[in-house]
Amino acid sequence: MSEHAFHDLIGRPEGWATLDVQAHHVSPWLVATTQRVATPTRPDGVEWSVVHRKGAVVIAPLTPEGHFVLVRQERVPVRQSLWEFPAGQIDGRAGDEAAILATAQRELQEEAGYELGAEGRWVPLGYFFTSAAFTDEHSHLVAAVGVVPHAHGAQPEETEAITAVRTFTRAELLGAIARNEIRDANTLAMVARLFACGLLTPADSLNG
Amino acid sequence: MSEHAFHDLIGRPEGWATLDVQAHHVSPWLVATTQRVATPTRPDGVEWSVVHRKGAVVIAPLTPEGHFVLVRQERVPVRQSLWEFPAGQIDGRAGDEAAILATAQRELQEEAGYELGAEGRWVPLGYFFTSAAFTDEHSHLVAAVGVVPHAHGAQPEETEAITAVRTFTRAELLGAIARNEIRDANTLAMVARLFACGLLTPADSLNG
Repeated sequence: MSEHAFHDLIGRPEGWATLDVQAHHVSPWLVATTQRVATPTRPDGVEWSVVHRKGAVVIAPLTPEGHFVLVRQERVPVRQSLWEFPAGQIDGRAGDEAAILATAQRELQEEAGYELGAEGRWVPLGYFFTSAAFTDEHSHLVAAVGVVPHAHGAQPEETEAITAVRTFTRAELLGAIARNEIRDANTLAMVARLFACGLLTPADSLNG
Repeated sequence: MSEHAFHDLIGRPEGWATLDVQAHHVSPWLVATTQRVATPTRPDGVEWSVVHRKGAVVIAPLTPEGHFVLVRQERVPVRQSLWEFPAGQIDGRAGDEAAILATAQRELQEEAGYELGAEGRWVPLGYFFTSAAFTDEHSHLVAAVGVVPHAHGAQPEETEAITAVRTFTRAELLGAIARNEIRDANTLAMVARLFACGLLTPADSLNG
């Protein structure tokens, strides 16, 4: 099994430089810009359309029985409800481990109504870029191994609409992915990372 | 193994209605809007920040030996180069199978320098939403099983910067995912779908 330390995502990469940024639309949720950026192969710069978004964290909650907890959420941009792992945006500096874990803990309780049990542990699994062609949005991935129902249940934010919460066995999760019922990047990226890190097969390795 | 027919993504979902759309920024690459949308649990409507993007297609090219072909691409929004499956935006109606496959064929050749061999076949694997909290962007997933080098090699578009192309064994692909080196939603979502559809394990099932 491979685990990842949280870290700054980008730093000061050699050969890259921001030459100009023009903001077209600024809201609390995103900033739409046109940027001129020097890259290793294009030192004179290239013009690109970039949407800034806060970083986020996705949580894979695993019960002591090795079942996954997913939430069903209305997703306004795509006009449908989706079964997904709980997730939420991070307030604070990118790559700040304390802020990531605080957000994971909050979303696990608010969206799913679960918390880490006495024997539970957080397993950081790196991060991913949701759509690197047009946005800097990234999501950290954290497995919450050993979750139990929270005494207060779920307490979703007013702006969200979570209509159901349920556990999926490993076979149910993979079946829903195979049938295209699970179709959001957060959940799929998490499953790929869990699989690659040896946390998803064989089934009984989940409690390791 | 499970395969998917291409289909319209959204249609006319019951309980959803677009009440108002205000466009803030329109470019050839995206449209940034604020929308008022009625949802099943919020029939009076909720205001949401939505970025429109064209649909895309991601290709998992598999050689006759069962190796994957990935490209290394400069990604301006995140100021780094990433190893990814080839991908590109689709011109044409969402869910149009001919347009999806034409795009897959074009990107496979332009970005990676490969084409489907005489014994090759396309295996459609559904689609996913890259970030359903703020954009309607979706990517279709297609495995290109049995690819061979194209006589003309790679011919990347001028606006892109693909700096390398190479094959990955199954173990190399999963190792790069476990080490967070592969960290884009396209490649991770494809791997989750391949895994769930039984196309990624055991290794020798890839040529099935």
